[in-house]
Amino acid sequence: MLLHEDRLFPADAATRAVARRLYEAVQHLPIVSPHGHTDPRWYAEDRPFPDPARLFVVPDHYIFRMLYSQSIPLEELGIPRKDGGPVETDGRRIWQRFAANYHLFRGTPTRLWLDHAFQTLFGLTRRLSADTADLYYDTIADALTKPEYRPRALFERFNIEVIATTESPLDDLRWHRMIRESGWGGRVVTAYRPDPVVDPEFGGFRDNVARLGELTGEDTASWSGYLAAHRKRREYFKTFGCTSTDHGHPSARTADLPAPAAEALFQRVLKGHPSSEDAELFRAQMLTEMARMSLEDGLVLQIHPGSFRNHNPLLYERFGRDMGADIPTPTDYVRALKPLLDRFGNERGLTIVLFTLDETSYSRELAPLAGHYPALRLGPAWWFYDSPEGMRRFRELTTETAGFYNTVGFNDDTRAFPSIPARHDVARRVDCAYLAELVTSHRLDEDEAHEVARDLAYGLAKRAYKL
Amino acid sequence: MLLHEDRLFPADAATRAVARRLYEAVQHLPIVSPHGHTDPRWYAEDRPFPDPARLFVVPDHYIFRMLYSQSIPLEELGIPRKDGGPVETDGRRIWQRFAANYHLFRGTPTRLWLDHAFQTLFGLTRRLSADTADLYYDTIADALTKPEYRPRALFERFNIEVIATTESPLDDLRWHRMIRESGWGGRVVTAYRPDPVVDPEFGGFRDNVARLGELTGEDTASWSGYLAAHRKRREYFKTFGCTSTDHGHPSARTADLPAPAAEALFQRVLKGHPSSEDAELFRAQMLTEMARMSLEDGLVLQIHPGSFRNHNPLLYERFGRDMGADIPTPTDYVRALKPLLDRFGNERGLTIVLFTLDETSYSRELAPLAGHYPALRLGPAWWFYDSPEGMRRFRELTTETAGFYNTVGFNDDTRAFPSIPARHDVARRVDCAYLAELVTSHRLDEDEAHEVARDLAYGLAKRAYKL
Amino acid sequence: MLLHEDRLFPADAATRAVARRLYEAVQHLPIVSPHGHTDPRWYAEDRPFPDPARLFVVPDHYIFRMLYSQSIPLEELGIPRKDGGPVETDGRRIWQRFAANYHLFRGTPTRLWLDHAFQTLFGLTRRLSADTADLYYDTIADALTKPEYRPRALFERFNIEVIATTESPLDDLRWHRMIRESGWGGRVVTAYRPDPVVDPEFGGFRDNVARLGELTGEDTASWSGYLAAHRKRREYFKTFGCTSTDHGHPSARTADLPAPAAEALFQRVLKGHPSSEDAELFRAQMLTEMARMSLEDGLVLQIHPGSFRNHNPLLYERFGRDMGADIPTPTDYVRALKPLLDRFGNERGLTIVLFTLDETSYSRELAPLAGHYPALRLGPAWWFYDSPEGMRRFRELTTETAGFYNTVGFNDDTRAFPSIPARHDVARRVDCAYLAELVTSHRLDEDEAHEVARDLAYGLAKRAYKL
Repeated sequence: MLLHEDRLFPADAATRAVARRLYEAVQHLPIVSPHGHTDPRWYAEDRPFPDPARLFVVPDHYIFRMLYSQSIPLEELGIPRKDGGPVETDGRRIWQRFAANYHLFRGTPTRLWLDHAFQTLFGLTRRLSADTADLYYDTIADALTKPEYRPRALFERFNIEVIATTESPLDDLRWHRMIRESGWGGRVVTAYRPDPVVDPEFGGFRDNVARLGELTGEDTASWSGYLAAHRKRREYFKTFGCTSTDHGHPSARTADLPAPAAEALFQRVLKGHPSSEDAELFRAQMLTEMARMSLEDGLVLQIHPGSFRNHNPLLYERFGRDMGADIPTPTDYVRALKPLLDRFGNERGLTIVLFTLDETSYSRELAPLAGHYPALRLGPAWWFYDSPEGMRRFRELTTETAGFYNTVGFNDDTRAFPSIPARHDVARRVDCAYLAELVTSHRLDEDEAHEVARDLAYGLAKRAYKL
Repeated sequence: MLLHEDRLFPADAATRAVARRLYEAVQHLPIVSPHGHTDPRWYAEDRPFPDPARLFVVPDHYIFRMLYSQSIPLEELGIPRKDGGPVETDGRRIWQRFAANYHLFRGTPTRLWLDHAFQTLFGLTRRLSADTADLYYDTIADALTKPEYRPRALFERFNIEVIATTESPLDDLRWHRMIRESGWGGRVVTAYRPDPVVDPEFGGFRDNVARLGELTGEDTASWSGYLAAHRKRREYFKTFGCTSTDHGHPSARTADLPAPAAEALFQRVLKGHPSSEDAELFRAQMLTEMARMSLEDGLVLQIHPGSFRNHNPLLYERFGRDMGADIPTPTDYVRALKPLLDRFGNERGLTIVLFTLDETSYSRELAPLAGHYPALRLGPAWWFYDSPEGMRRFRELTTETAGFYNTVGFNDDTRAFPSIPARHDVARRVDCAYLAELVTSHRLDEDEAHEVARDLAYGLAKRAYKL
Repeated sequence: MLLHEDRLFPADAATRAVARRLYEAVQHLPIVSPHGHTDPRWYAEDRPFPDPARLFVVPDHYIFRMLYSQSIPLEELGIPRKDGGPVETDGRRIWQRFAANYHLFRGTPTRLWLDHAFQTLFGLTRRLSADTADLYYDTIADALTKPEYRPRALFERFNIEVIATTESPLDDLRWHRMIRESGWGGRVVTAYRPDPVVDPEFGGFRDNVARLGELTGEDTASWSGYLAAHRKRREYFKTFGCTSTDHGHPSARTADLPAPAAEALFQRVLKGHPSSEDAELFRAQMLTEMARMSLEDGLVLQIHPGSFRNHNPLLYERFGRDMGADIPTPTDYVRALKPLLDRFGNERGLTIVLFTLDETSYSRELAPLAGHYPALRLGPAWWFYDSPEGMRRFRELTTETAGFYNTVGFNDDTRAFPSIPARHDVARRVDCAYLAELVTSHRLDEDEAHEVARDLAYGLAKRAYKL
């Protein structure tokens, strides 16, 4: 078997017994996935997934970046080149390369997620390796032709109560419309991710802003029209179940400029080629504008700063974005968020969810901020920390100052559909293990731990994201 | 019962057994509290504490900031407004609000401290909740009317050998005088906290400096007179048992200016409205001046930098300082302390105790500095880290480089009187748990662990602070 | 006994059993030491080591800095003064001072290393203390007169397969030549450490560069001649087994200047008294030049930045470098390495090993970088982290993102010859303990853990360093 029923539980027998009891009570709770990146087209069209390599390897930068770090060219893994140059097209060969290097994932969460999918979805029980590569390929490829492996069937099998996808304000939400009109009961909602029209350094920013004007009938060449266009677009997204916005800036910087200064800044960045300071300041101002709109329309504001995107220019030129070369940087929250918090931090009607890629901020900045400001909540261990050790550190470093109730449960944040149940399962196990340790060291009673476990697995996400 | 006798001990049975043996030998040692903020007036007047809400909730920013973070207005918790506006005055109602939200403190040290006080002081054994709120209120309120719950009786019951309070140089130490003249045997000493006359950005700085001149008969409009006034005031504090000074600056920056430059700087900051660079430089220079005076008069110098005070301007305007909105920031020690260390770091007759709110500095900066400079010692896990996980990380991150003997034992650093025994008990348990793990992994022999446990609980604080 | 056979293993019985099995399979593997600082003269001349104090105390800054931090003057420990002033010369008295303060090392890796040497090399089984100081001194002094305690005999007894020493390009490698010509079978190789001719702030930089020209017959007053001299010297070092270069800069900054700008910079720094920015930029450029040469000649490039050297000027003036006053500082890798990585990061024929003294970079920067760039590998927990807790944190913070195979095994990095087996033993035990925890929590199968344990103890170092 690939999976042991006690995986990720504490070694100590008494503590493990508590962890088991806690986990048994939450393992079958539905999945609430308020922050994700699956493709709504899958649920709209409900077509079969392609071959195993294109399901597991090609779209998952966790996998191909690790193989790349060990000198396997991305072309050999079938990653499409921007120039249309030749890459591997034989799914089986891609899969064999991956399988022969499966040992590279020892000790990583990718290994946990994959083994979970291999066993629970496809009934595979021998470890993936060069020897079992073909067995895996054939088994998975065969399954993918069956109706019960189509996106909607998997959605239901995964027990997903609700999942959010992420769309640009320029998206027409056609797949969401198709899902709704299909009469299928699965709850798929959108989230408002305005980076393309908010970040002056985003490719095509000026055209994007113009297009936003066309979509909304607002004059987005003016500051007031631009803001009005956002308001309209947010309302449109809400008609497709949207309850949150999502902002991935290089830093957590915010600003609260007087209206004329904001307007002048908007005009400068709209002219093109803004200075990096102007670009940063505009993003900063827009976080505060988004918070103001959230107070009006109730959307939850998510900020996840601190990634140096596309660090590797050779790969960016050849393959484009999201090639596993986004690297975290030190991130300040205390000074960066102050303008926004000065304005809206005490608002009880506002929810701002903070994520980080800089663990040093957990206990030093994020927990103290969230343990004070009514508007702030902490997002879960994210991206490079979306792992057993990362999740454990998140709890150890935030709970003592912010408690459990200033956190918002788990986000899977993934486009790797088959990994979703595995990721939630890992989070539930790690949280139950943490709670069990509090119980065994007599810091929490077991009846309380049961309540908390349920909240961490289900209730907090549902309440924080109003789902 | 609220308290389990094995709380905070390791889960592993063999390790727990070692922890128990270590703890049994130190649990009843007297409390040495060299760095605290209780009110000396309590011991001077020995009046009964007011109602349960005003004993536990209203003065404790650990409690009310957590409630505030979950949208409970401070007015409803009875926190006085600066403008005298209406706030809740009914202690029972405040207590009920607190009790109904006691689940927010799950996993926090506040919960440990409170449960300890509830059970050991008031005999309460059912968990606090909305259901038990009145039971708690009545039980505690009733006890507070009895003589054995007055400050001096509790001081003795807590087995406090010596406690330091903290006073401004402008304080006349009248309560300390009253304690001494009362003939009561409890040892309450003062500590010299000169922020109001050392920090040009402290409210009323110029008037404070003038007042310091009046108190000492020195011309504090001159640099030499200002320094002489400090010397006199330190001597005065020493007559009330003072063995230490205490400095809470925004950064750890120090300076060692030539005397004329220091004098010119003093004249600039005294004029009012100094630049922030001048204010920072003056604080920096004063740390070095204080070190120089410590070499002369033997007072231990405590530096605890890195808090962004009063981060929330709305709360600061409405309620004032210390409202739970002091947020840690990244803190440099290596470059910041260099001017002071260049001058006095090799002095064997000087003790400088360093605290931090930035855990990243433990292993990277503080332990290497304290493991080298004779004048440096490390203060304990402090404030946001004054918690089981925080204390454990402090030991894990500092011991391997600085050892145990460059640390100074535990400081409770609190104005929450009933939490003092609980805090020392938590520290003793966590240290014994850490030592037990060293013993079980055969890094330390048990006889040595006993010696260290006693030093961490009692001896190091007594020796480092010359108490 | 000083050593327990289960030291450093997890407390939990089941996990400990796994750790034991893993360790049993790797404990006797030969030592591969690719990054060290022992003196090649020892192996060349094979003379007896001097007395116990001069073997253990005087050359080991881990030991004397701790004693110094507790106010023991370095003079009393026999550390030679630059001015030739009087210091303790009686080895026994030095030893007694050390022994009387052995409790200071409780909980430190120094204690583990020393106890290992005391018991395994000298058969000592009672703890070192004032009481046993003379017993230890006599036992060790007696042993050191015997042939089996000479350097070559110890080298063989330690089961060292290969060890690297570190030499300046100005070194004539005479001891390496003598070793080779002696016919002794021990494999001692050199490593190329060019700081004296690469760092414009290194003492004697201009003269060093001139000397480099003399040694190589190149005109090192010109940029092209200077680079050619490096190339020649690297080739010369390769004839003495060199497989790596070693660079200890204050920061990880790299640069990739156009050739004319690099040449102009070289001319500026060669004139003497360069600005600190020019000095930093030259070091930055030279890392990229070294990478370019590594691509040509195959030498592994090691970067270990972030130490503030000689922080204590009083000690530096009196005793010189390496007095235990090198203090870590926050270190950026993401922006600092970008120029070098933009140029060579995707090269499969290049190996760059990154070390850190700033643990915050493990999970935030180093693991994500090494988990992506083919040219990057992570060096082990180093210096202040070369300890059980430090090694554990290294694995916990890097494995989930970079895996095991982007790391390079253990480096002892020491000039303390008798500690080498102890250090490798500690590393093997800690890695086996970590792997055992993965096994017990069902994140890794035991057969895989055996493979990984062997790689961490032996295979990775051999392969990464091409030894």
